[in-house]
Amino acid sequence: MLTFHDHRTQNRRSTSELAGGELIAPLECPERVDMIADRIREVGLGDIRGATMHGLEPIAAVHDPAYIDFIENAWADWRAAGYTGEAIATVWPTRRTRSDFVPQNIDGKLGYYALAAETAIEAGTWEAARASVDIALTALDHVQTTGEAAFGLCRPPGHHAAFDQYGGYCFFNNAAIAAQAAREAGASRVAILDVDYHHGNGTQQIFYDRDDVLFVSLHCDPVHEFPHYLGRPDERGAGAGEGYNRNHALPPGTDYTTWVAELEAAMSGIDDYDPDLVIVSLGVDTFEGDPIGSFKLVSDDFTDYGRRLAGMKRPTLFLMEGGYAVAEIGINAVNVLAGFDRG
Amino acid sequence: MLTFHDHRTQNRRSTSELAGGELIAPLECPERVDMIADRIREVGLGDIRGATMHGLEPIAAVHDPAYIDFIENAWADWRAAGYTGEAIATVWPTRRTRSDFVPQNIDGKLGYYALAAETAIEAGTWEAARASVDIALTALDHVQTTGEAAFGLCRPPGHHAAFDQYGGYCFFNNAAIAAQAAREAGASRVAILDVDYHHGNGTQQIFYDRDDVLFVSLHCDPVHEFPHYLGRPDERGAGAGEGYNRNHALPPGTDYTTWVAELEAAMSGIDDYDPDLVIVSLGVDTFEGDPIGSFKLVSDDFTDYGRRLAGMKRPTLFLMEGGYAVAEIGINAVNVLAGFDRG
Ligand SMILES: [Zn+2]
Ligand SMILES: [Zn+2]
Repeated sequence: MLTFHDHRTQNRRSTSELAGGELIAPLECPERVDMIADRIREVGLGDIRGATMHGLEPIAAVHDPAYIDFIENAWADWRAAGYTGEAIATVWPTRRTRSDFVPQNIDGKLGYYALAAETAIEAGTWEAARASVDIALTALDHVQTTGEAAFGLCRPPGHHAAFDQYGGYCFFNNAAIAAQAAREAGASRVAILDVDYHHGNGTQQIFYDRDDVLFVSLHCDPVHEFPHYLGRPDERGAGAGEGYNRNHALPPGTDYTTWVAELEAAMSGIDDYDPDLVIVSLGVDTFEGDPIGSFKLVSDDFTDYGRRLAGMKRPTLFLMEGGYAVAEIGINAVNVLAGFDRG
Repeated sequence: MLTFHDHRTQNRRSTSELAGGELIAPLECPERVDMIADRIREVGLGDIRGATMHGLEPIAAVHDPAYIDFIENAWADWRAAGYTGEAIATVWPTRRTRSDFVPQNIDGKLGYYALAAETAIEAGTWEAARASVDIALTALDHVQTTGEAAFGLCRPPGHHAAFDQYGGYCFFNNAAIAAQAAREAGASRVAILDVDYHHGNGTQQIFYDRDDVLFVSLHCDPVHEFPHYLGRPDERGAGAGEGYNRNHALPPGTDYTTWVAELEAAMSGIDDYDPDLVIVSLGVDTFEGDPIGSFKLVSDDFTDYGRRLAGMKRPTLFLMEGGYAVAEIGINAVNVLAGFDRG
């Protein structure tokens, strides 16, 4: 399988993540990508190719243009306000306040466009988030041109990013942007299968009222886990999208036997949907050693489910999402891809 | 004028405030109270008396009982989760996620009940927040019994605390609790005049659909300033409360001439309302030297407006809210009270 990447993703070098009441070194770090690229070379998965620029139009097809402007300018606005730390939201609109106007100062804007405070915006964020989208779209180009599967080694991840909100280490929703681009290029139906440990709240939100993009997510129940306020099974879509959003919320500590049974159910639903393209939001924070996950998958399990994914026999685009056990992230991510190739 | 206080307020000794992307020493610090108490003694404003315990019932009259339980248990839950920092929200419900259930884990609960991340919950928060309410209610008792004005030297402040949300250094809304208690004790109409630099979003929310408590606030326009998502002039109340919420939103850098003209307009509206009690949410972060304010009031201006407030000739309860220029907070707060006494 070919991998697509762009070194500009490494321009995001945030130094602060708010966690446990402290500012820690971010779990979503550049080394994640290095480990995966190294492992790809080590096992000879296939070439790693560069990404081509795709511009802002595909991003604006799923994100609010004002939000895109915000991400572009947030760091400069923050610096202009005189702050010396990285840009972190400290106050936000809530169920009892207003969301019908965007404040003019940067603190107000940050909170308006944020859904979480663990994720800081810094100097390289805009360029890295753009590069991550370019990677996804270049990998999509390859799938569409050849019918072969491809891997977009995206960073930052995307599945928590909503129409006009960032958080959970995500800024632009790579999977949603690719799904929309595929639709515009002629795919009738696209399925997004999100196997990250966390619910893909952003992807769900973007396609919630649509039946042309099926969203299926396996994740830890949000009652117990980030992103907390979305991802329950009763969220099944709205309007034309009713029935086209499927949340498989699993309890903390879920092992592979339980997990893979849910995956099989999810794939069966995707097969019934008969999509022209399957996009896999590939988070490997389901690994037993993940510092922020509780699931119990071991490295061989990733190979096994990669093989099962191949059984869908659909054009498949893998896009990297989460996974924070840096030492094993390469093994686990590449196991999925190699399992798929062998499947 | 008598002052009421309780040393338990000093049990809140948070060490971390999220500001400018960094964890700093909190601006809302115990020394604020010490400076005000010292100044009261220095100028001989009047005795400082202790607070009496008033229990949870008056708090539950304006706050969600589940929220009160949360504030009581948040620190223990946070510690049980193994965190070593203070409890700070990192993710929250937004305009595109759900607020119809409370997550079970502490991170999810914190975000559900928070409206801002600058405010950490720590070991002494529950006891201090309770004490602050007791101070307000004891000072109210004095006003009701004697007809004299009184000063509740509350800490933490209260005006940002909403029905079920904390933030902006506030946990329980002392002014709202006192207003509700006054109503239950027989006052027909209560006016709350909030002169803090920041909009009293919590107080507004609690009484937004009621005509028995008039809320009038002078503050910096939220388009430019915390709490950002509430406090604009078009928020005039709802239902029976229509017309009983009045926001005087002023531009950054407002000077005393402009400010006091708005105050006179606000007081005129209060006079028309003919309340049995006026509660002044006394924030002195309108001071020109305040580290987080932009208004230009000088210390003598506080004396001047204290005198003007006396001109309302209403039973008046002063409750301490914000003010972060610690060296001058005693002078400015006591200038208002002394100006009132002399007025
Ligand atoms: Zn994840
Ligand atoms: Zn204030």
